[in-house]
Amino acid sequence: MSVWIGVDVGGTKVLAGAVDADGRVTSTVERATPGRLGPVEELEDVLTEAVGEAAGGRPVAGVGLAAAGFVDRTGDRVAFAPHLPWRDAPVRERLATRWQAPVALENDATCAMLAELELGAARGTSSTVLVTVGTGIGGGLALDGRAVRGAQGMAGEYGHMTVVPDGRSCECGETGCWEQYCSGRALVRAAQTRLADAEEAAGPASVLGAWCEDTSAVTGPMVTRAAEAGDPVACAAFADVGEWLGRGLVNLVAAIDPERVVVGGGVSRAGDLLLAPARRTLAEHLVGGAHRTVPDVVAARFGPRAGLVGAAVLARQTFAG
Amino acid sequence: MSVWIGVDVGGTKVLAGAVDADGRVTSTVERATPGRLGPVEELEDVLTEAVGEAAGGRPVAGVGLAAAGFVDRTGDRVAFAPHLPWRDAPVRERLATRWQAPVALENDATCAMLAELELGAARGTSSTVLVTVGTGIGGGLALDGRAVRGAQGMAGEYGHMTVVPDGRSCECGETGCWEQYCSGRALVRAAQTRLADAEEAAGPASVLGAWCEDTSAVTGPMVTRAAEAGDPVACAAFADVGEWLGRGLVNLVAAIDPERVVVGGGVSRAGDLLLAPARRTLAEHLVGGAHRTVPDVVAARFGPRAGLVGAAVLARQTFAG
Repeated sequence: MSVWIGVDVGGTKVLAGAVDADGRVTSTVERATPGRLGPVEELEDVLTEAVGEAAGGRPVAGVGLAAAGFVDRTGDRVAFAPHLPWRDAPVRERLATRWQAPVALENDATCAMLAELELGAARGTSSTVLVTVGTGIGGGLALDGRAVRGAQGMAGEYGHMTVVPDGRSCECGETGCWEQYCSGRALVRAAQTRLADAEEAAGPASVLGAWCEDTSAVTGPMVTRAAEAGDPVACAAFADVGEWLGRGLVNLVAAIDPERVVVGGGVSRAGDLLLAPARRTLAEHLVGGAHRTVPDVVAARFGPRAGLVGAAVLARQTFAG
Repeated sequence: MSVWIGVDVGGTKVLAGAVDADGRVTSTVERATPGRLGPVEELEDVLTEAVGEAAGGRPVAGVGLAAAGFVDRTGDRVAFAPHLPWRDAPVRERLATRWQAPVALENDATCAMLAELELGAARGTSSTVLVTVGTGIGGGLALDGRAVRGAQGMAGEYGHMTVVPDGRSCECGETGCWEQYCSGRALVRAAQTRLADAEEAAGPASVLGAWCEDTSAVTGPMVTRAAEAGDPVACAAFADVGEWLGRGLVNLVAAIDPERVVVGGGVSRAGDLLLAPARRTLAEHLVGGAHRTVPDVVAARFGPRAGLVGAAVLARQTFAG
């Protein structure tokens, strides 16, 4: 029995898995993503290994790739990916040839949108904005039951909307991008700042502080665990990042007026720690907020696996009978 | 022979006209918009007069109203309009009863989108973002040949996207809204600032300065005429506002990835004085700009009449045959 494989090629890790027709992930493989300054071959070797391992010896019906970057309209090339080594690279054909299997390629957030739209939290809505908060911010847009790709397949690149003119530097070369204020990295940075402030002020003891020799050891999952345990420093860091999530949503909802907002990506694992401050900020600052229904802000069904599942959904939609 | 009337109810003026099937405006009437703090009746009296005058004694087949504010999904009520006295007002039915004619109601920028989509600069595109720069900023969105209204008929409210956290105060109650930096009012403000700076620095003579006893006398059309005459102060004011137009477009294009950007509204009369700096800023700051085609930024066909024409198109689409 052949399997459909989805692969999410993120800025930090590669996540591959076999996905059945109901969107259940029956095997997963995780690898660290090789650095963006290294050779392309290094990344493609890791992908090849991961796909092989996810298939586990079964014949591969097709592979969907969800790439953290700009994929062109035809789904053939990765045009630009701030966190990956691909630059104008004909990824689809190169890997299809290497793997001797049909390969479909799409932006990771558009894949996540597909997964949520077909099988998850966006199902049945007239319009949904999906924001994936991971290493950076990706996103997707669904209108009238279809994922909107944009004129060049680049719709939903919300992470590089400017939220602070002349703000923090971004890897994309610009400043003040949303993902510099709301992302896994922003969460770590917020926790580090809050931790340093708390230590200086000799405030109440922080679990997070106790876990780390110094603030440079803080990681995103660590902040999440500490916040879940009620640690005030970690909770404050989530409040910071959640408020920035809400501030960006104010702009997206003003522009697009979606029925629902779905939040996915690694950081969304924290649930209401992230979403509650975002909802509050959106309701408080959305233009005409008192005269309209503020859209629901809900967690993605697939969470951090949405890209993987959506990639497999895409491959199946593209290549199955 | 009966006529279709379109009425653009803007923050500064009411523009009514009879519109033929090809979008030609065969008569126009202009009135100042009564203040937003005055009674609703005052505004509705002005509209009644304007519609009567535009019809010029001919029977009215239907009236389309393009309102500068949030119109609900059913097209019955103006929910909220920062520059107008209507608040949760059942405008459509009230005026249809008063005028004994079918009335269609829609957001002014969605009307402008309809006009450009059916007969103007957005015709034939797969996706267009329309930004109308007038007293404030409105906007519209077209995907796959249709105007997108949004879940609550509020899509395209680009003017209240935040571009500067804790920035200039806006009439909507928030701070840092895009229209505070890019609009007719922002143009006047930029010219006033530049004029004061130039006088202080005893720079080269400004026509604009010569026209005004003091800077409070500056108006938008005055800045446009001065800039067209090459006045350095007025040109610098357009460069300021045009750059802010581009900065906002960076965000919209990152999110929506449209094939084309169409700029309308009163300030767009100035053409490339406004659009050239916007194009430059968009090309310079759009994420992945070197790896994608930056969408065209073109002037609307109907310019300041787009709302009026689109309102008549809407009335005709809704009530004709």
